[in-house]
Amino acid sequence: MPTISHKGRNMPESPIRKLAPYADIAKQKGHKVYHLNIGQPDIKTPEVAIEAVKNIDLSIIEYSPSAGYESYRKKLAQFYQRQNVNVNSEDIIVTTGGSEALLFALATITDPGDEIIIPEPFYANYHAFASSTSATVIPVISTIDSGFALPSIEEVEKLITEKTKAILICNPGNPTGYLYSETEIKQLAGLIKKHDLYLIADEVYREFLYDGDDVHFSVMNLENVQQNVIMVDSVSKRYSMCGARIGCLITKNKAVLATVMKFAQARLSPPTIEQIACEAAIDTPQSYFDEVISEYKSRRDTLITELNKIEGVIVTKPKGAFYCIAQLPIADSDDFAQWLLESYNLNGETVMIAPAKGFYSTPGMGLNQVRIAYVLNKKDLISAVNILKEALLVYNAKK
Amino acid sequence: MPTISHKGRNMPESPIRKLAPYADIAKQKGHKVYHLNIGQPDIKTPEVAIEAVKNIDLSIIEYSPSAGYESYRKKLAQFYQRQNVNVNSEDIIVTTGGSEALLFALATITDPGDEIIIPEPFYANYHAFASSTSATVIPVISTIDSGFALPSIEEVEKLITEKTKAILICNPGNPTGYLYSETEIKQLAGLIKKHDLYLIADEVYREFLYDGDDVHFSVMNLENVQQNVIMVDSVSKRYSMCGARIGCLITKNKAVLATVMKFAQARLSPPTIEQIACEAAIDTPQSYFDEVISEYKSRRDTLITELNKIEGVIVTKPKGAFYCIAQLPIADSDDFAQWLLESYNLNGETVMIAPAKGFYSTPGMGLNQVRIAYVLNKKDLISAVNILKEALLVYNAKK
Ligand SMILES: Cc1ncc(COP(=O)(O)O)c(C=O)c1O
Ligand SMILES: Cc1ncc(COP(=O)(O)O)c(C=O)c1O
Repeated sequence: MPTISHKGRNMPESPIRKLAPYADIAKQKGHKVYHLNIGQPDIKTPEVAIEAVKNIDLSIIEYSPSAGYESYRKKLAQFYQRQNVNVNSEDIIVTTGGSEALLFALATITDPGDEIIIPEPFYANYHAFASSTSATVIPVISTIDSGFALPSIEEVEKLITEKTKAILICNPGNPTGYLYSETEIKQLAGLIKKHDLYLIADEVYREFLYDGDDVHFSVMNLENVQQNVIMVDSVSKRYSMCGARIGCLITKNKAVLATVMKFAQARLSPPTIEQIACEAAIDTPQSYFDEVISEYKSRRDTLITELNKIEGVIVTKPKGAFYCIAQLPIADSDDFAQWLLESYNLNGETVMIAPAKGFYSTPGMGLNQVRIAYVLNKKDLISAVNILKEALLVYNAKK
Repeated sequence: MPTISHKGRNMPESPIRKLAPYADIAKQKGHKVYHLNIGQPDIKTPEVAIEAVKNIDLSIIEYSPSAGYESYRKKLAQFYQRQNVNVNSEDIIVTTGGSEALLFALATITDPGDEIIIPEPFYANYHAFASSTSATVIPVISTIDSGFALPSIEEVEKLITEKTKAILICNPGNPTGYLYSETEIKQLAGLIKKHDLYLIADEVYREFLYDGDDVHFSVMNLENVQQNVIMVDSVSKRYSMCGARIGCLITKNKAVLATVMKFAQARLSPPTIEQIACEAAIDTPQSYFDEVISEYKSRRDTLITELNKIEGVIVTKPKGAFYCIAQLPIADSDDFAQWLLESYNLNGETVMIAPAKGFYSTPGMGLNQVRIAYVLNKKDLISAVNILKEALLVYNAKK
């Protein structure tokens, strides 16, 4: 048999995929499974976007330009400008999801063996994108005690080597829900300027902030380091349009943009119909966002209140996105997550959680942690956390 | 300034992109430009597909499964089975265009420095996909004299080294229009079996055959080598749905499929709405294809007849796809193509052609060749070739 590449073998599997067969078994037994493991919101896509699809006026579904439709890029730039984020339409390349923007960013700046520093726990697919472009992830550990704040800048600086090409952050963070402060972002800016690195900021959750006085500080608003900055964004979460596969890469660095453009040309174009839907989505009324944010805020508050009622659980209130990391009174969350699906139910119901191990690249980290997504309504969240509470008692008693 | 990766710098630019500014200039002067350079068909998308988009019944545009919707994969398998192509739904991973399928195939089987043998001239983006996964393209030259048939199998075998991982063919071919015979495909199968390589077949033009007795022999129907075979397909050309960005990778090799799946999971999913459109497109009536093929056939015949009227032009009749390579009585088709846009017009009209250099990786090859796509109606094709004829006289007289 011909062989599989090292790159392919080293690609991490989705941390949740291993559990999927157990969820199927639970469902086959007739058990209801509350999915606390996924990032697919249950929020409706704005009607303007759905209407644009229904009213599509095309007789040929043609390739769009490789950088995306100019009309869409212009409206997108205006969208950022209305939020005082420093973006022009020439700075934007439309990508097939934020995923492709991340892949293009890494491919543009790293060669095999080059290093990317990422605060961990981090979005598991960063690892996959790094593997697929043969770059190496160097984690810097952020801890639950500090609410997953940026580690001290000295800590980060110590990890910089000749091979380091970039620092990659997710703001606000999946899986932590942590929102970086303007001070932290500026500290990172100082560091990348000093060592001539890139700062890649994944801002796909930029709208999802829940505390009145918190503001999102975009890397696009950093001064004096714009040649070193790459921003990644997506419509997936903003408009609950995950299936549209439309994101973007934004930078003021023309050499980066020209190189990203070569990757973009090779894959021809982002999806046509969905881009038209995204252009329409820019006119989503503010009331939509107000409702969505207030819904998530009360889900977050409910989730954290309920989790705090469980003895031995440690969790900090996430400031943004729709995830949190919870530390449980257990030794091995892989085993616990599987047990929940395979061997446990409370009145015919159980929960699926994401073991946090998959969000760390340092071996041994996150073993007693899980990621919980609050993409369920409050009633379901309360039921799910109650199941978790009862399950922990049973699980720990059987030892 | 932080640096760009070698990989990024080595990414070839689109061979046509350099000419785009000259086309803009011609248009600004008020000249009409006949585009013989592009692969975007002017054929209408089947109505069943457009209707499916208009009737979309979704309130949330959610991620689809990473391998694509099961219902779509099942219908797609039936589509192949109706043509006696040996494909089951479990053999298919739906990708974001054939482009992504090619990228996943190369990433799954090659590490940096590994080699892929490709008959040239070849689709220029093969080079880009190889660069982006850091593999090396080893060309084997097919010539215009033989109508771009597969070079002798000994010729191909000579190029195999320890680093060779696969042979990649496009059948029928872009840019040559060449259709491999069953004998040629079986010769290649013998070779990959002997040396334990993969055979990747890009069959995105599989429907576009113009001569009654010709049949397309799919690599999926090869016997005894299915563990070595990967097929790439796409809806882009079949249904004139290039902007849908839906393709697929097909293989019976479970290890390959599992690895491709890891890449697929990392990028989450192919587009949702467009997949629904593709599922509907499978019900496109045969009459649609009959009309499309007969239209292309008569375009091809017109184009070749007209080209043969030009003194010094050498062209062989393509058997499939919608391109041909023409050898012109000039020394440098880059210069000629630019001159056509920048300095020439016949009654206010000119043509844009793709210099063939970009379809070769051997330096010095293809300098007097161009690729002509016949995606224009016959009247326009005749006008365009007439312009080419007159232009050649002027161009060669000025020397
Ligand atoms: C942190 C983060 N970045 C990027 C993405 C990619 O999203 P998409 O490719 O749908 O834009 C996700 C999706 O969950 C995410 O959580
Ligand atoms: C030979 C060949 N392969 C693959 C592709 C990729 O097509 P898509 O990504 O639109 O499926 C093309 C597009 O022109 C092509 O000509």
